[in-house]
Amino acid sequence: MKAYIISIGDEILIGQTVNTNAAWIGEQLSMIGFDINCTATVHDQREDILDVLKIAESKSDVIIITGGLGPTSDDITKQTLCDFFGTHLIIDKEVLAMIEVMMKKRGIPMNENNRKQAEVPADCKVLKNIRGTAPGMLFEKEGKVFISMPGIPYEMQYIMTEHVIPDLINRFKLQNVIRRNIMTYGLPEARLAEKLTGFEESLPGEVRLAYLPNHGIIKLRLTVTGEDKEQLQQKTDEQVKKLYDIIPDLIYGENEEPLELAVAMLLRKTKQTLCTSESCTGGMIAHMLTTVPGSSDYYKGSVIAYDNSIKKDLLNVPQKLLEKHGAVSEEVVKSMAEGARKLMHTDLCLATSGIAGPDGGTSDKPTGTLWIAVASEKNTIAEKHLFGYDRVTNIRRFSNAALSLLWHKIKK
Amino acid sequence: MKAYIISIGDEILIGQTVNTNAAWIGEQLSMIGFDINCTATVHDQREDILDVLKIAESKSDVIIITGGLGPTSDDITKQTLCDFFGTHLIIDKEVLAMIEVMMKKRGIPMNENNRKQAEVPADCKVLKNIRGTAPGMLFEKEGKVFISMPGIPYEMQYIMTEHVIPDLINRFKLQNVIRRNIMTYGLPEARLAEKLTGFEESLPGEVRLAYLPNHGIIKLRLTVTGEDKEQLQQKTDEQVKKLYDIIPDLIYGENEEPLELAVAMLLRKTKQTLCTSESCTGGMIAHMLTTVPGSSDYYKGSVIAYDNSIKKDLLNVPQKLLEKHGAVSEEVVKSMAEGARKLMHTDLCLATSGIAGPDGGTSDKPTGTLWIAVASEKNTIAEKHLFGYDRVTNIRRFSNAALSLLWHKIKK
Repeated sequence: MKAYIISIGDEILIGQTVNTNAAWIGEQLSMIGFDINCTATVHDQREDILDVLKIAESKSDVIIITGGLGPTSDDITKQTLCDFFGTHLIIDKEVLAMIEVMMKKRGIPMNENNRKQAEVPADCKVLKNIRGTAPGMLFEKEGKVFISMPGIPYEMQYIMTEHVIPDLINRFKLQNVIRRNIMTYGLPEARLAEKLTGFEESLPGEVRLAYLPNHGIIKLRLTVTGEDKEQLQQKTDEQVKKLYDIIPDLIYGENEEPLELAVAMLLRKTKQTLCTSESCTGGMIAHMLTTVPGSSDYYKGSVIAYDNSIKKDLLNVPQKLLEKHGAVSEEVVKSMAEGARKLMHTDLCLATSGIAGPDGGTSDKPTGTLWIAVASEKNTIAEKHLFGYDRVTNIRRFSNAALSLLWHKIKK
Repeated sequence: MKAYIISIGDEILIGQTVNTNAAWIGEQLSMIGFDINCTATVHDQREDILDVLKIAESKSDVIIITGGLGPTSDDITKQTLCDFFGTHLIIDKEVLAMIEVMMKKRGIPMNENNRKQAEVPADCKVLKNIRGTAPGMLFEKEGKVFISMPGIPYEMQYIMTEHVIPDLINRFKLQNVIRRNIMTYGLPEARLAEKLTGFEESLPGEVRLAYLPNHGIIKLRLTVTGEDKEQLQQKTDEQVKKLYDIIPDLIYGENEEPLELAVAMLLRKTKQTLCTSESCTGGMIAHMLTTVPGSSDYYKGSVIAYDNSIKKDLLNVPQKLLEKHGAVSEEVVKSMAEGARKLMHTDLCLATSGIAGPDGGTSDKPTGTLWIAVASEKNTIAEKHLFGYDRVTNIRRFSNAALSLLWHKIKK
């Protein structure tokens, strides 16, 4: 089964937006066994859209289109789809009602543009979009399926997951593919690959291994293809078991699980509460932890002590320590963790102090230096790391390093 | 002048790699006046590559190809280009010598794969690549230019910058393009479009307007094309001035400026310090503010009061207020802002309290409800918003709403 992915939008062509939608859709479709034979991006222009639709139709069984469904005049996808399928726009009453409710809830009066969002080509099946005002649309033509969705990733992903993927699995007889992601933290890619050389060489032909690094986390992805689903599952399990045997301390979870979710699950399991105290990470760790729904059950809060006065006044870090060792030191980060834990009455506290850059580094403590500490009732542990020069990357890597230390501490 | 960008590689099609090359090349080419009419990604397969080359040739003046130039057997771009142009591979002595030097420096003996890297189609102009072993190649055919480069971004960018861009500027008489982004916050896309209907209708043909929404921020992009650069600049300035006249309160900045940077610049200008106190946004605002380099000059820290006990104990929010109005209320968010401002001794404090979801909403205070407050020495202002159901999106939209209120407060 072949799929063709079309993205519509000038902002992608001129590089103002990187096309993450095409990558995401490509991944989803290939996971259910599709061969993606092309992804193409074209202008918000009638002729260009019609041209690419014709090419896609001649080459693929499923054509997925994103973008150009906004309410403004530069969005012409719907009218062009009407031209392609020889149909016309009608108001979908259910979509209109949904938009009216949405607008009412937000206290915004309906206007002509909102009403236009409820227009769909007469011959399509409407795919409900509860995350926005533009619905998805499914067309059938001579055994081929065309799907049009809004370009906003969060809306598109909802429509794909809820409507498109289940429909395609039902509709076509697809080859089986099993993909399993093993989440690791603690070794850079080249070192990890070295450790896994023997494992990689022993892999059977139908099993593929990929390394997907992201801010210190390396996702190991096993892809296994074949006919018999049960056999595939068994083969995958065997290989995953081998990985756990070779690198037990590096694996913190599976699938797309971020570190903050692994921490969250351990906190729930051990019935412990957590607070944080961040300096250089400036709220990133709190943000990551609170992205997990229900985090208020175990996460109490944070003192972001960006300024030394906050470290002293709120967290009771002694002035002497700051003067003698500097804010970025084992002594201060431990004192921050202990002070914040007492202040917020939690079982555990995670603290960070470092130099995110681009300025502020010295020969002694270069940009990229990080101290992290975890305080519990029993003791306080600390760890030092050295990363790179880019501020935004450092903040993410610092946060992952800190969450990994916390994870190991609770795990023990 | 039209350009067509072709990326070759399975890893892009299946979403293992996001196609940042196409975005980067699109930006570079559109900056020198090219109209990018399509970007397409295809398999490492002869027929697919030949097909897309034919389409590209029929539609564009310049065709840029990346990928498939590695030394392994799945890289077949060079042989396919030979087939397309009716030529054959020869060894380029200069490239071979360069590879030999490179290998010697790394202490690696030359093998057959390395030697293959020095093969190029007989009729191309070789574009030197000092960052890797695969050279770039330029072909001419009936007035059209084809360029093939390796897919490794760092190598491709070198060849583009050093060879391709200067060649294209010399070769073609290119049209000038000016692009200007006006950053707005405060109205959803449909409402903003309504307000700008007259403006849009009065735009001269060579000026295009696009709406690019992102978590409540809408970037208005004006694209102006023409011959005379000075005239273009003048036309752009005229239209931008009109925008400032129509929506003065909605524009907070230009180009890619995020709200946190606009706030940062105002704080520096007015020499004021800031702290935050977040509940529902859980550290996101602190994270956004501290992403700006040098933010420690004006940003002192935050108390993330995720749990009500922190609101009471640290921020001195009276128990009575929490009981009577609930944590998500005007009274409590104002009290949080005032309490945190006193605690951290700053000129201003921004506070948030709301329901990010997915759970926790009631009929009275549904998921998506947000209260924000800004406290200064003089007074405390508060604002209520209602957003959607998705937790991650809400946290971003909440944060932008809060930063916008702060921006307006300082601006006044």
